[in-house]
Amino acid sequence: MTSPVSYDEVVTAARRIAAVAVRTPLLRSDALDAATGGRIFLKPENLQRTGSFKFRGAYNRLSALGPGEAPGGVVAFSSGNHAQGVAAAAALLGLPALIVMPSDAPAIKVARTRAFGAEVVFYDRLTEDRAAIAAGIAASRGAVIVPPFDDAHVIAGQGTAGLEAVADLAALGLTADLALVCCGGGGLASGFAVGSQLPVVAVEPENWDDVNQSLAAGHIIPVSDPQPTRCDALQTLRMADVTFATLTAHGARGDVVSEAEVARAVAFAFRELKLVVEPGGSVALASALAGRVDLRGKTALVVLSGGNVDADVFAACLAEG
Amino acid sequence: MTSPVSYDEVVTAARRIAAVAVRTPLLRSDALDAATGGRIFLKPENLQRTGSFKFRGAYNRLSALGPGEAPGGVVAFSSGNHAQGVAAAAALLGLPALIVMPSDAPAIKVARTRAFGAEVVFYDRLTEDRAAIAAGIAASRGAVIVPPFDDAHVIAGQGTAGLEAVADLAALGLTADLALVCCGGGGLASGFAVGSQLPVVAVEPENWDDVNQSLAAGHIIPVSDPQPTRCDALQTLRMADVTFATLTAHGARGDVVSEAEVARAVAFAFRELKLVVEPGGSVALASALAGRVDLRGKTALVVLSGGNVDADVFAACLAEG
Repeated sequence: MTSPVSYDEVVTAARRIAAVAVRTPLLRSDALDAATGGRIFLKPENLQRTGSFKFRGAYNRLSALGPGEAPGGVVAFSSGNHAQGVAAAAALLGLPALIVMPSDAPAIKVARTRAFGAEVVFYDRLTEDRAAIAAGIAASRGAVIVPPFDDAHVIAGQGTAGLEAVADLAALGLTADLALVCCGGGGLASGFAVGSQLPVVAVEPENWDDVNQSLAAGHIIPVSDPQPTRCDALQTLRMADVTFATLTAHGARGDVVSEAEVARAVAFAFRELKLVVEPGGSVALASALAGRVDLRGKTALVVLSGGNVDADVFAACLAEG
Repeated sequence: MTSPVSYDEVVTAARRIAAVAVRTPLLRSDALDAATGGRIFLKPENLQRTGSFKFRGAYNRLSALGPGEAPGGVVAFSSGNHAQGVAAAAALLGLPALIVMPSDAPAIKVARTRAFGAEVVFYDRLTEDRAAIAAGIAASRGAVIVPPFDDAHVIAGQGTAGLEAVADLAALGLTADLALVCCGGGGLASGFAVGSQLPVVAVEPENWDDVNQSLAAGHIIPVSDPQPTRCDALQTLRMADVTFATLTAHGARGDVVSEAEVARAVAFAFRELKLVVEPGGSVALASALAGRVDLRGKTALVVLSGGNVDADVFAACLAEG
């Protein structure tokens, strides 16, 4: 199967975002190497502009808009990280942004989305269809919808994180054997596979494992009525055709982490890395610490995908983990 | 007045620690620039090996030991960050380490000091003299004492943070106007002044402002019976002759922050920077946010000096700040 998103598209995206995105560093930790038996390099996208990797894809999508293509600006639906990414990218490009957010989105994510100048419209996650609401608003105001992961430009933008990480490793004289990547709809995991050209493990929270199930089955399998998760950023019921095709073309596999493993990873990042990582942003680290993916003797990239977490959720993770 | 620690000594220290210390990145934040009116670059030493800058000075001091100079290893007294720095440096150099710690040191700092392989001996902060205890142990076992700040090698090691920050700014085509540095006994502030060759503002917590008082008076003034502070890393009653002379030679001035300003800075770092910063490590950021030092239109370095904080203290800062 051919990847729908090419390496060249990621290189182009890297050029587009270079002046505005943070080139996040690679970090390492003796404690993490000791716990995994591997040589682990972290890509801390919690230090990215807006506090998550989402800015990369959003800015790449928006800067690829043609003249007059979005007279009414941009519309996105998101539980929060994509919302902030789109809002910040739109503000930098002088476009109005409206974000459709679930009414139970973390307060910090709502506040920060507004702080970037976006208008926020709420919907009820259980009874309303956010895609339909967004489509209606976009049509009425001549705006362009920026999907969270079902878009080649968005995926290519996320892939710049993989491109950077591999280049920074090469500067140290190293190559990685694999990458563990946090996964909701698979935009980051897909982009990372393309940009890094590494075998990717797409890590999801338990019950929200549509990507894991789909990769294992060889066709898309949605999840329905999953249990709640504290990984609000990864609550995706069904991956997209483009992320399925990209991950399949790159031979990606998956891992699923429990809520307890997530809390342990958030606490580990607090204690050993001195980083604030949100639950959904810690699932790849949780997988590395859980030991199901054998990292012994290997060089691995582990992505920390975001750090937008309310203080009470963070404190609960520290108490539990 | 001539500085007792020279720029060349910092350059030598940088060579000594290069292979083992983290070259911490420079980070920035739109929110911080907006709050201060300046162009602020953070030097996050919470991401340093052992979770604070202290590793730099400790490793430089220990690697300057002559052959046979420390047959019984090294002894240090510290509330925790210097302890971890000495313990980690000693482990890397194959030296036994014993640390004299106050019985009320944060649990995380005691646990981490032991995790680096050091022996810990407790003393009562109110009734016992830690320097005398350390001297007695060192004499009995033929060990060398590594002072927390009263030592030119230690100061030169801390100064490598300033050297790196200025070099990284230069690579961006920038020079800073000043640096805000967290200050206990003045080891980091002194080293940073030498290594960066910038005007330094030494920031202390209220009531523990011996350096501020001394710089203002032109001679060393100790503080006595200060109120408790959550900045456990900065509880120094009296600066040393060498830090006084170094800071004076470089024209350093000071600022003092309140406990409430510290909590606000810890919470700001959590929310906006996604960094875990301990109370004592956040005082320079607290000063920048408080606005008493005019940063409008200026380019400034702000040091985050450590991130070793217990979860309950961190949660309390978030709730308050």
